Amino acid sequence: MTINPEIRDYLDALELVDHHVHSTLIPRLTRAEFELNMTEASAPIPSWMTQFDSQVGFAIRRYCAPHLGLDRHADADAYWAARSAVSTEEATRALAGSSGIATSLIDTGYVPTGTTGPLLFDLDEFATLSGQQVFEIVRLETLLERLASAGVPAAELEREFDAALQKATQTAVGFKSIIAYRFGFDFDPREPTSADFLAAAEAWLSTPQTHRRVSDPVLLRALLWKGARTGLPVQIHAGYGDPSLDLDRCNPLLLTPWLRLLPADASDIILLHCYPYHREAGYLAQVFPRVYFDVGLAINYAGAQSEQIIAESLELAPFAKILFSTDAWGLPELHHIGAALWRRGMARILSKWVADDEWSLADAVRVADMIGRGNARRIYKLADR
Amino acid sequence: MTINPEIRDYLDALELVDHHVHSTLIPRLTRAEFELNMTEASAPIPSWMTQFDSQVGFAIRRYCAPHLGLDRHADADAYWAARSAVSTEEATRALAGSSGIATSLIDTGYVPTGTTGPLLFDLDEFATLSGQQVFEIVRLETLLERLASAGVPAAELEREFDAALQKATQTAVGFKSIIAYRFGFDFDPREPTSADFLAAAEAWLSTPQTHRRVSDPVLLRALLWKGARTGLPVQIHAGYGDPSLDLDRCNPLLLTPWLRLLPADASDIILLHCYPYHREAGYLAQVFPRVYFDVGLAINYAGAQSEQIIAESLELAPFAKILFSTDAWGLPELHHIGAALWRRGMARILSKWVADDEWSLADAVRVADMIGRGNARRIYKLADR
Amino acid sequence: MTINPEIRDYLDALELVDHHVHSTLIPRLTRAEFELNMTEASAPIPSWMTQFDSQVGFAIRRYCAPHLGLDRHADADAYWAARSAVSTEEATRALAGSSGIATSLIDTGYVPTGTTGPLLFDLDEFATLSGQQVFEIVRLETLLERLASAGVPAAELEREFDAALQKATQTAVGFKSIIAYRFGFDFDPREPTSADFLAAAEAWLSTPQTHRRVSDPVLLRALLWKGARTGLPVQIHAGYGDPSLDLDRCNPLLLTPWLRLLPADASDIILLHCYPYHREAGYLAQVFPRVYFDVGLAINYAGAQSEQIIAESLELAPFAKILFSTDAWGLPELHHIGAALWRRGMARILSKWVADDEWSLADAVRVADMIGRGNARRIYKLADR
Repeated sequence: MTINPEIRDYLDALELVDHHVHSTLIPRLTRAEFELNMTEASAPIPSWMTQFDSQVGFAIRRYCAPHLGLDRHADADAYWAARSAVSTEEATRALAGSSGIATSLIDTGYVPTGTTGPLLFDLDEFATLSGQQVFEIVRLETLLERLASAGVPAAELEREFDAALQKATQTAVGFKSIIAYRFGFDFDPREPTSADFLAAAEAWLSTPQTHRRVSDPVLLRALLWKGARTGLPVQIHAGYGDPSLDLDRCNPLLLTPWLRLLPADASDIILLHCYPYHREAGYLAQVFPRVYFDVGLAINYAGAQSEQIIAESLELAPFAKILFSTDAWGLPELHHIGAALWRRGMARILSKWVADDEWSLADAVRVADMIGRGNARRIYKLADR
Repeated sequence: MTINPEIRDYLDALELVDHHVHSTLIPRLTRAEFELNMTEASAPIPSWMTQFDSQVGFAIRRYCAPHLGLDRHADADAYWAARSAVSTEEATRALAGSSGIATSLIDTGYVPTGTTGPLLFDLDEFATLSGQQVFEIVRLETLLERLASAGVPAAELEREFDAALQKATQTAVGFKSIIAYRFGFDFDPREPTSADFLAAAEAWLSTPQTHRRVSDPVLLRALLWKGARTGLPVQIHAGYGDPSLDLDRCNPLLLTPWLRLLPADASDIILLHCYPYHREAGYLAQVFPRVYFDVGLAINYAGAQSEQIIAESLELAPFAKILFSTDAWGLPELHHIGAALWRRGMARILSKWVADDEWSLADAVRVADMIGRGNARRIYKLADR
Repeated sequence: MTINPEIRDYLDALELVDHHVHSTLIPRLTRAEFELNMTEASAPIPSWMTQFDSQVGFAIRRYCAPHLGLDRHADADAYWAARSAVSTEEATRALAGSSGIATSLIDTGYVPTGTTGPLLFDLDEFATLSGQQVFEIVRLETLLERLASAGVPAAELEREFDAALQKATQTAVGFKSIIAYRFGFDFDPREPTSADFLAAAEAWLSTPQTHRRVSDPVLLRALLWKGARTGLPVQIHAGYGDPSLDLDRCNPLLLTPWLRLLPADASDIILLHCYPYHREAGYLAQVFPRVYFDVGLAINYAGAQSEQIIAESLELAPFAKILFSTDAWGLPELHHIGAALWRRGMARILSKWVADDEWSLADAVRVADMIGRGNARRIYKLADR
């Protein structure tokens, strides 16, 4: 098909806001570690296969190889030879830095620690390497777990959490919940009382542990309610992720009873990823004024086939409710292809609709701007920062 | 892509039967009211956005603007200026009247009342304004609620309902159930006994109320069973609608146990809308002889992206089991774009299959006729009316 | 669109391995019987319609008619006249024999018996008629039911089953479970003990019956566990099939808890069909090292629209985890179109990605080979047979 050059040029020049993303890995990886970071799997890639033979692998070879001095579609061995020859700083500079993403909202909630400290570049380092403006998204569960790991007793946990949350609103542009991973969306939607919180906190803290991991549904939903009362946007992981979640319990439709209970002045709620439930998310974004969504992560993993997923995200939801993200974690390849595939998919979809006279050209570029940049800037109030 | 001119001309001339639709609004609306009628949302559109910035909004500007003397893709303000300058009669005449829909089966079950009477044109008025032949579909729950609101006591409710249902078969061409809205499809599939009905009716009527709204699952499924025993087609709302329903409980697969229990001489069952469960509906239409479905509503709301949804409706179901509808309510824009988008999507899909020599041209126009007109005429016995 | 001739020629010459399929019917059929075998329905096709008016019917007329001396798209009556004029041996030779399938792994678990014996050609007969190499897949439930019907008492059933299973590993290349049909995937995932097996066997065998049909969830999941411990691949019916299953309980995501419990040395697990849950299956194939899947059956029934389903199967799963199958049963038309539609869909999808420079040509043909042949040869160790 023919891509409309005006649409393509507009998208190529668009300074994207990646509203949900993570930093990149500091340590040099083995090839096996690199390949494992190309999936949502937790178990090692079986020896008889390579994860390069997947849509995400093909997209990396297609889009990232030229930034490492290789031809497009360089084979997996050549790619790995070039990639492992550069430092992780250089890789982040070359790949995240050339993504065309101007601004990243970075979820700092999952940063594993190695012997020499955190394994991901911190926000300042990532900003410098990538040349991007960065803002922080604070993970609600991490905030609570830090308090618990620091020894805050059950009786003080809620008050301390409230204070920490309040403090985080000074620097963070939004919050994130991973209740999908820790429990699922089939929770009692009502707001827990302080007595509920206390009882759950006491049960959680009653067994000795050094690192606290919250999976109690009362605490998880208390955090969700508290996040939704801050006025700052609350991101919620929905749909697909690593196999520690039960995907069928991460269908965002299961949030409906909770969404109905939210007061009129609650925070904006942004459903992340959503695949394969992105049509369901689009429905929620149409009927609930405060609900937004993206199809990040799925775009990366579907590679050449991501155009269809992007198109499916453009069904029921008003265009003011759809956001761009990569959900890249660890590998700057994922930041790069997340942006490249989104631009490509949007250019193809919008070109088709304009060529068919279904949409005007002016509308097409306007919607590209809304999804790629404008909606995120409005929701997270980035101009005020 | 190239549209086959024979297919396009055939579709353009096809006298559509819109087998599930509603009438248009009598009062002049404010822009806020108009925009709210462009969604399935119940809450007002937030002030920082316009519902015109959506697929349905773009489709209205694309397809309806020329019928109000504007260019295609006229902007939202221009559209609203022209639209608010004409009466609702004129709008219905201009938009529903130019839709190419020859016959509408109108669900009269939801007609809100204002200070001067019902807010929708009645069937005769709509027929005159739109130039269409109209038939009535009677909503089962409305029939029951009218009796209850009129003071029929519990002990007589079933007999009175049976009489009203029998009487309705004289004029209506079919019935409709909204058990999806009032409960969900996860109901006990067995036919309630008269004792069950009486007990449920007594419980329902035991609290004083002026307007009765039935949500008791025993009564709802009793109505469904009674409808299915009339021999007239029974439409069932499935899938997406306003946020008072739990969408995951409106998956038509949940009707499977009930469909298995229906006797061989039961009514035809037509699953309405179904999105995002239209593939599931296509499966049911293949394996249950009496099951039909449509993808109305979703076509309107997906606008330029509706082609994919129409294509997905053409997978498992035999072509004799698929119907056309708009499910338009209130705004004649929805009648107009529902027909225009269906014609466009079908023309594109069928042109592709014929160009690829997957289907013959003769088959393509025959299937267009079946879905757009013929199946509905057969099922609802319209030629006999 | 333009098909890449190198891709098309490669696919046309590819010696497919149909890793999940059945044999063809021996008796001559009436037209009504023939049409019923063109669906997954159990009830007769209603008299006012023909199952030829469906995607599968159109695909048969398009692809099979030339092999019976007719023009492409010959009408249903002409097709039936030609088809009913040839013997079932000739039909199998003409249609399965021209499919380009080189190797079939045949599920022998469902072979109805007529007055003169089994109604399907046996493996040797099918091999001779089709010119294919054949291997056997043994259905776990059939193995158990044969023992029970032969009078093995409850106390000896597990030991006898274990022995039969062990014996089957000498000849079969894999096993199959139909727990989806007999119960659903919402079973307790834990491995039953021998005491559990014995109690369930006693309950099952306690009522007198001549033909035993296992539907006890303890026995069904015991079989699944036993199959997964053989080291041979275990196929699991998932998603769509005849209306005796509850489709929503056949969502492969419901297997997640069971997949998590499988030991590291368990068998490969191949999810069959999966439609409309093939995206969910692709997710499982990405995150669980031993999980594979196919979209057989749906390709046949979606006909010209199958290209989209094939494309959707190429999202999250690594290409080493996707297989080709027809799941044809009874009619050699289904073997023929299953292969033809897969080749067509793959040629179109891969041509588009190569034309757009998303994939290299070399990668495209390599992936076609993996899915069409190579993955099955590796998993089922066909080169060793």
